[in-house]
Amino acid sequence: MEHQSRQKGFEQMLESERLDGFLVAHPANLRYLCGYTGSNGLLLFLDGRRTFFTDGRYTQQAREEVAGARVRIANGSLLAAAARMIGEKKARAIGFEADHTTVAAASEMRRLARRNVSWKPASGLVMHRRMVKDADELRILRDAVKMGAEVYQQALPAVRPGVRESEIAGELEFAARRAGADGMAFETIVASGKRSALPHGRASSRPIARRGFVVIDSGVVLHGYCSDMTRTVFVGRIGREERYWYDAVLEAQLAGIAAVKPGATAGDVDHAARQVLRRFKLDRFFTHSTGHGVGLEIHEPPRLGKGQQERLQAGMVITIEPGVYIPEKGGIRIEDMVVVTPTGCAILTPVSKELMQI
Amino acid sequence: MEHQSRQKGFEQMLESERLDGFLVAHPANLRYLCGYTGSNGLLLFLDGRRTFFTDGRYTQQAREEVAGARVRIANGSLLAAAARMIGEKKARAIGFEADHTTVAAASEMRRLARRNVSWKPASGLVMHRRMVKDADELRILRDAVKMGAEVYQQALPAVRPGVRESEIAGELEFAARRAGADGMAFETIVASGKRSALPHGRASSRPIARRGFVVIDSGVVLHGYCSDMTRTVFVGRIGREERYWYDAVLEAQLAGIAAVKPGATAGDVDHAARQVLRRFKLDRFFTHSTGHGVGLEIHEPPRLGKGQQERLQAGMVITIEPGVYIPEKGGIRIEDMVVVTPTGCAILTPVSKELMQI
Repeated sequence: MEHQSRQKGFEQMLESERLDGFLVAHPANLRYLCGYTGSNGLLLFLDGRRTFFTDGRYTQQAREEVAGARVRIANGSLLAAAARMIGEKKARAIGFEADHTTVAAASEMRRLARRNVSWKPASGLVMHRRMVKDADELRILRDAVKMGAEVYQQALPAVRPGVRESEIAGELEFAARRAGADGMAFETIVASGKRSALPHGRASSRPIARRGFVVIDSGVVLHGYCSDMTRTVFVGRIGREERYWYDAVLEAQLAGIAAVKPGATAGDVDHAARQVLRRFKLDRFFTHSTGHGVGLEIHEPPRLGKGQQERLQAGMVITIEPGVYIPEKGGIRIEDMVVVTPTGCAILTPVSKELMQI
Repeated sequence: MEHQSRQKGFEQMLESERLDGFLVAHPANLRYLCGYTGSNGLLLFLDGRRTFFTDGRYTQQAREEVAGARVRIANGSLLAAAARMIGEKKARAIGFEADHTTVAAASEMRRLARRNVSWKPASGLVMHRRMVKDADELRILRDAVKMGAEVYQQALPAVRPGVRESEIAGELEFAARRAGADGMAFETIVASGKRSALPHGRASSRPIARRGFVVIDSGVVLHGYCSDMTRTVFVGRIGREERYWYDAVLEAQLAGIAAVKPGATAGDVDHAARQVLRRFKLDRFFTHSTGHGVGLEIHEPPRLGKGQQERLQAGMVITIEPGVYIPEKGGIRIEDMVVVTPTGCAILTPVSKELMQI
């Protein structure tokens, strides 16, 4: 993995931000910058050197995983160990992750470090770099999406009237383990019948009804990277109105994908999908944004919501997932992952979106 | 569930803390105080009223789940909606969760709310109440621990030379789904052979070797509450030195349990377990603390670590889980969940700790 080049790039950015050092604590940022996959780690950039702090539980793991940084095992608080090192060096301005540091931890940092340290809250400095994926990351993400699609297809035969939503989720998750996934990217959603109108209907103990939509939203983690896909199938024979809803969502999803290209704003893509649902007079039932970035975390920037000004760049990996949710009746969501290419985008999710009736 | 009495108790505490209001955002605290299980919610205590804010994705779910608070669906930022309501009421001192609010969110809160609001970071006010479980919670926790033990036992036959660690984790997790678990409480640990010396060795694709320890640390979530247990089995015929390590850990674990009673400090319990390992000259291989609280979250206070002064109270539910980890050789951990009773404690985990050779 390209950890050392990521560290170099980040250090150059620190210079341009006039920071003498930076403290990274967010697990996904640690993994991105130095390869560490455990919990309770701190990576300190200071004077062109990287020091990684963890506790005794992770001695062996840190030595095996951490690239480009010296490993120090702290006896006690990692923050205290890092603050001591910062104090020794008489550094001035030290940045930290404002989006991932709690008010309590920031107050502890101020207490621990010497008075000559000025702590600078910084939002999204590492995340901004993570938005555009490098070649290593794209390769893993493609594999993760492929695995996510395969395990979805292995679970599909379980979708039958009378089978509990949680059993379908169980089949899917077991298939993911057999396939070698690290785990699931989020709690698997299997929402059937009226529950399909819940955009976030985690699999419950309810059995699949004799007729109605079933929304299945799932993702695996492979080598730390997440996949995310949603398909909606219909159990029984679909009615006219239900077919109309499905066709509207599919058309909106395709319009969203068609709007993805470098230079378009995140809001443009959301608008393209939303406009289709407006034409179908269903836009008021589309209660969330059109998509989000995916990588080491399941929800990363950019957020493809109304009016979002972030511009898409080649190498970003995002979801396109409009839905409509008709209270007390049912809901549909269709979601692919796509990678932004120099001329538009490529769909990563290799599964048909034609309506499937079971 | 006793949500309304929890809210009343919390409001009384706010008065004694001289707070005019309080903003709760941490998901486990929301679930505890009002029953909401989704993401992106805010519960505002103000002037003896409770208002719950969420977004359009959770309209139906919030109406079904939230007890004792008025539900408001915000068009946009929940913080902005809460800040508007706080501004209207001309309140003065509003507390917030210092341990769960990021520096970025706190800065946004200050920007949004009127100048006459004084934000008071408060650590652990809700968590402190959650440490002692009420009757509803103890009932669910007992069921969760029982389910966790059953699925562990269902997965045990899969532990054989040549089977991948991840397949054993998969069997266990599939059994949890079949049993009706909400999901897993953390990434299942199956660490075999030399990997058993990693205290946090998540299941990998490595096959079980012909001989050696296998540490299995797993937990389910049932109605939101976590279980947590570890057993270590031996594949093949155990050697003299390995037997010595196992006996030491088991004796330390029993000594830890024997030290649990109301009024003892968390550090006393840690000391009791650690002393046994010192007698076996193995204390330097015990690199973590003896246990932690468990409830809606897998790691809650109290932390049973060296010198911790928190006093145990009847109704606390904690783990007792010493371990030894001999680098390049192997490791053993044995973990039960116990509930503190008026006279000592009761072990919740109904699984033998006698050495099992497979």
